[in-house]
Amino acid sequence: MGEHKRIGILTSGGDCAGLNAVIRAVVNRAVGTYSWEVLGIRQATLGLMQQPPKYMALDVEKVNFLLTTGGTVLGTTNKGDPFAYPMADGSVCDRSEEIIAGYHQLGLDAMIGIGGDGSLAILRRLAQQGKINLVAIPKTIDNDVGVTELSIGFETAVSIATEALDRLHFTAASHSRVMILEVMGRDAGHIAISAGIAGGADVILIPEIPYTVDQVCRNIKERQEQGKNYCLIIVSEAVRNETGNSVVSTDRSGECRYGGIGQYLADEICHRIGAETRVTVLGHIQRGGTPSPLERLIASAFGVAAVDLIAEQKYDQMVTWQNRQVVSVPIAEAIAQYRAVDPNGTLVKTARGLNICLGD
Amino acid sequence: MGEHKRIGILTSGGDCAGLNAVIRAVVNRAVGTYSWEVLGIRQATLGLMQQPPKYMALDVEKVNFLLTTGGTVLGTTNKGDPFAYPMADGSVCDRSEEIIAGYHQLGLDAMIGIGGDGSLAILRRLAQQGKINLVAIPKTIDNDVGVTELSIGFETAVSIATEALDRLHFTAASHSRVMILEVMGRDAGHIAISAGIAGGADVILIPEIPYTVDQVCRNIKERQEQGKNYCLIIVSEAVRNETGNSVVSTDRSGECRYGGIGQYLADEICHRIGAETRVTVLGHIQRGGTPSPLERLIASAFGVAAVDLIAEQKYDQMVTWQNRQVVSVPIAEAIAQYRAVDPNGTLVKTARGLNICLGD
Amino acid sequence: MGEHKRIGILTSGGDCAGLNAVIRAVVNRAVGTYSWEVLGIRQATLGLMQQPPKYMALDVEKVNFLLTTGGTVLGTTNKGDPFAYPMADGSVCDRSEEIIAGYHQLGLDAMIGIGGDGSLAILRRLAQQGKINLVAIPKTIDNDVGVTELSIGFETAVSIATEALDRLHFTAASHSRVMILEVMGRDAGHIAISAGIAGGADVILIPEIPYTVDQVCRNIKERQEQGKNYCLIIVSEAVRNETGNSVVSTDRSGECRYGGIGQYLADEICHRIGAETRVTVLGHIQRGGTPSPLERLIASAFGVAAVDLIAEQKYDQMVTWQNRQVVSVPIAEAIAQYRAVDPNGTLVKTARGLNICLGD
Amino acid sequence: MGEHKRIGILTSGGDCAGLNAVIRAVVNRAVGTYSWEVLGIRQATLGLMQQPPKYMALDVEKVNFLLTTGGTVLGTTNKGDPFAYPMADGSVCDRSEEIIAGYHQLGLDAMIGIGGDGSLAILRRLAQQGKINLVAIPKTIDNDVGVTELSIGFETAVSIATEALDRLHFTAASHSRVMILEVMGRDAGHIAISAGIAGGADVILIPEIPYTVDQVCRNIKERQEQGKNYCLIIVSEAVRNETGNSVVSTDRSGECRYGGIGQYLADEICHRIGAETRVTVLGHIQRGGTPSPLERLIASAFGVAAVDLIAEQKYDQMVTWQNRQVVSVPIAEAIAQYRAVDPNGTLVKTARGLNICLGD
Repeated sequence: MGEHKRIGILTSGGDCAGLNAVIRAVVNRAVGTYSWEVLGIRQATLGLMQQPPKYMALDVEKVNFLLTTGGTVLGTTNKGDPFAYPMADGSVCDRSEEIIAGYHQLGLDAMIGIGGDGSLAILRRLAQQGKINLVAIPKTIDNDVGVTELSIGFETAVSIATEALDRLHFTAASHSRVMILEVMGRDAGHIAISAGIAGGADVILIPEIPYTVDQVCRNIKERQEQGKNYCLIIVSEAVRNETGNSVVSTDRSGECRYGGIGQYLADEICHRIGAETRVTVLGHIQRGGTPSPLERLIASAFGVAAVDLIAEQKYDQMVTWQNRQVVSVPIAEAIAQYRAVDPNGTLVKTARGLNICLGD
Repeated sequence: MGEHKRIGILTSGGDCAGLNAVIRAVVNRAVGTYSWEVLGIRQATLGLMQQPPKYMALDVEKVNFLLTTGGTVLGTTNKGDPFAYPMADGSVCDRSEEIIAGYHQLGLDAMIGIGGDGSLAILRRLAQQGKINLVAIPKTIDNDVGVTELSIGFETAVSIATEALDRLHFTAASHSRVMILEVMGRDAGHIAISAGIAGGADVILIPEIPYTVDQVCRNIKERQEQGKNYCLIIVSEAVRNETGNSVVSTDRSGECRYGGIGQYLADEICHRIGAETRVTVLGHIQRGGTPSPLERLIASAFGVAAVDLIAEQKYDQMVTWQNRQVVSVPIAEAIAQYRAVDPNGTLVKTARGLNICLGD
Repeated sequence: MGEHKRIGILTSGGDCAGLNAVIRAVVNRAVGTYSWEVLGIRQATLGLMQQPPKYMALDVEKVNFLLTTGGTVLGTTNKGDPFAYPMADGSVCDRSEEIIAGYHQLGLDAMIGIGGDGSLAILRRLAQQGKINLVAIPKTIDNDVGVTELSIGFETAVSIATEALDRLHFTAASHSRVMILEVMGRDAGHIAISAGIAGGADVILIPEIPYTVDQVCRNIKERQEQGKNYCLIIVSEAVRNETGNSVVSTDRSGECRYGGIGQYLADEICHRIGAETRVTVLGHIQRGGTPSPLERLIASAFGVAAVDLIAEQKYDQMVTWQNRQVVSVPIAEAIAQYRAVDPNGTLVKTARGLNICLGD
Repeated sequence: MGEHKRIGILTSGGDCAGLNAVIRAVVNRAVGTYSWEVLGIRQATLGLMQQPPKYMALDVEKVNFLLTTGGTVLGTTNKGDPFAYPMADGSVCDRSEEIIAGYHQLGLDAMIGIGGDGSLAILRRLAQQGKINLVAIPKTIDNDVGVTELSIGFETAVSIATEALDRLHFTAASHSRVMILEVMGRDAGHIAISAGIAGGADVILIPEIPYTVDQVCRNIKERQEQGKNYCLIIVSEAVRNETGNSVVSTDRSGECRYGGIGQYLADEICHRIGAETRVTVLGHIQRGGTPSPLERLIASAFGVAAVDLIAEQKYDQMVTWQNRQVVSVPIAEAIAQYRAVDPNGTLVKTARGLNICLGD
């Protein structure tokens, strides 16, 4: 089994379903099989920044119930690039050395970082600067990390968004309404197009495909003429208005929380063709909840494989899911390939093939 | 089986889960057992107002798949009191006689009306004015119709709201946030208190119990001091702000769609104690979806019982659910007893007993 | 809040969903509000029989996650009436005094016993013999405890059985088969009739209503003649074969595990009319799982109310659910009224009204 | 859009979730986009064997609601290889020419066949013999068709099996039992290993990995010594007993319906180590039900892509799912590569990495 190790694990960026299942798998493999120690770092790199570093020792019994629970027991944060950390006085400060010091202070031999492309880029920079032995696991409900077919959190988010569409069908039809569902996807439209196809949307709007409101209105009218009295629209929060301005109902700045792209569309459609419209912003419900079975499977596979990479001293690698197998690739390669929805790929072809309007 | 009859059925007010299951039961009983005719009136009383009246003939095969589908195949509307119907020119007009004429024009012997207390009051007035043989079935996700333990739509709405809380727990805990879930309930807090208890909310705010933001903030602080890093708040849309003004994120006028009570609370709590807050407005998802098993059971029982009341010529009656039995009562009696959440009843006692903060 | 107390809680008989939610509510009320101690007795009365008695001290933090988890953290058993306890040598032995001694040895002021009518009768006998201050909470997926509208575990079991019927519809129709679902219900048919109505069964067989296989076969043939190519049958495990013999696929003795009533019906129907039949025995899946929202609500209400009965020193009482309120009644009264499915009640009327065959 | 075509579609072998979603996609693409005709052949090749051939004309409105419904509206059968069709007198008969004649009699330009490897081999033989322009879509809850990552039906079956394990955990723990869940998988262990990992099984037995009961018993004992009082076993129906004999609880012959491998294991484990065991045979519930979101996505993609292959006159091809893209391959290639669980692949590594016992 090789020599004893003490490894760290942290979850970075927004939470999602499946993180706890990864943690459980890491502990089962590292502690259960290899008899290593596993320290769960609290609140991403914030935990390493503190003095003393904040962590929880993890053992097999403690993680036993984590397979089916959402979120992350370690806590996380999406605040603060450590290389330009926001200070109380409004200035920014490079706090990377504190994090690196925290890693070495804990006597860690390696660290498993779970995050999206932004988090992984930061973790990699920290690793290179501070001789941290890093192994990465991709996580993002947006599914925009390159190389890997699926990242942790996406599959469950799609399930929840699909279920919401399933429910909206009935109420839309009962009241002859245009129903708009705004889903997450800060830059990419993977949730919207996947859930849109699975949930039988009539219109799917994603940032990768330019649209006009007039085209959407034309489509609604055509359906009405064909006898369909309602219309279901799913839209990524990242879609911009027609003049190209962002109307993200952001929850970061607190500046423009109301009236995201869903509301914009509702107002425009109501204004242009007089249709009765309603908006639902699915919000944080997409993040939480029991992970779907496939999510748990991938999370388990990623966790075991990440520990095995450490056992083989293969660092600076990220695990990926490809054709129901885990394959490891250099982190740099994965984050270099941003994964947008391919306008010529199967999902877009399928949506068009089903005569779903993409707004173009 | 008595003489042949032709009966009508209509669904009035907002749609919800279980309406179709009622329709199926009515048809199975009236057509399947009694060999009557059943006409499904389109879009509530609007269908009778039109010339010729709009309806669909219903038979057993056509309703077969309706047990598990949400919404209402008949369509519905919550626009327009027929006694003060909004005309295109902005005036209002009494169109009750048109509806009554439509009923008689269709040669109906009786009519089953499914609606909340508002709709049922209107239907009853129409019935008395126009010699309509009316039997009523209570329907409202707000569960505020008197006498009956449960109305159609409520049980499923509570299930969906509870599921949303289940999901929000994980993401709230992962980010140490105050999460606020705004649920339906135009006047009464039944959904909020039922889902709040079932979903493990920390704070439940309902219109029946006055609250202060300071009391809520104090509760959040106390939990933090006891080591709980997050807080889950569920609030009825009908709850007013501290100065007693409505902040319903109404979808009727289009005037103040943004910033309902959920957003108000988020802003206040963030402002007063600096907590990171997030809001989810559950919206129309609460209405749609496959009815829960209990919903289907009650819907089936109501549908059969309503037809049997017609067979016995017991009109002006409403079916109610009491201790797993259907009991019929005069409609007048039911709508006279508005059913708010009882501040001294079991639900409030249970919430207090679990140390849930009710804001007072 | 009155004087300090130390109370015990135990779960008896078969496990089910909602038990943990009761335990959580009891601890939140007793420890959280009243600052009492709560000892969770292990494995029902077995825990008190041992020397020293086996229990776990329960506090608010420990029970926090129990709202949504199935089963019972205390463990349970359905082996062994303590008044005639089966010994290793095959004899039976009255061990009631050991249990009573265990109760007093732990210094308990009162005990909350959760169980079905059998368990509650035993607990009450122990209480009377041993001066145990007992408060009872009804629990049985069979819902056969008297007075109370619902017992813990039933609502979730019905949900799971309904979901199974929902799934079987599609495969039955695809293959033109007669599908038989055997559900729990050791003496009463509540699960079968409730899930049968909610899940759209064509035939419902319950022990309360005598049936003949010929009548069932006639019904299947009639449906076929009307163009319905498949048939869904739900049957309580307690239904006997036509000669009145039990064919329970019991899991107690290990003697006749195979071939319960479901298989009997499948064989008979296949033999008599040549229909292709398939059987599913739902089994222990009915017991487990996340409690339904209503289950959690009732469990929470029962738990709080049971503690309050102790605070008021009202012993020998059982909490019941009646019209969305908790009402307490003497245990003796509740267990004296066995609750079978009423052949003249709403459920049977509803089934007949939907033209569901009850086999008679 | 090219010339007008009339195409057929049939579903062959056991039903599963997702078939109707494929049919819907095919019709949306072929009728909705290309304005072709689509004939749905009834009950697989049986429909073509009859005189006149049995089919239903499919249009966009008719298939609209099929996205979320389980099973197949076309009906299916797993009876009868047409090259050796079982006749009433017990003999077999080659009826392939009747099927081929039926295809040409309907004036079909091409046919989409949905089936597992057995069905697809037969359809391909018919196609070659009878100049049928065939395009294939892989379908099998066993996921044992080569080349494609996923076949229709598998993903939903895994979800249902995982959910069953989730439920059994609680009841197993409450009663300190060994719970055995027998799942489908006539030759391959994909459902068992996928659901076993996702559902947290302690022991997973699949036909691809030889096991001994003693090894399983040893594992149960070890867990008990480590303080885990229960054990969850998932086993494929195809696993044989220790002497290598099949104990499939087959529903084909009617000969040995009772006592499949699950029961065998329960008896052996009870006998050898005295553990209290319970068996659940999940059965046809795995086939039915609303398809999972991913299932619907793949089904939609397959349906569109299959029609497009016909539009391009690329016959004798099968659509496959690879890395979230549809790729078409020669049918011959796909069915030549039987897809068992790879004992050195990610799933087995993951199971071992989580210290799940595989019986070896």
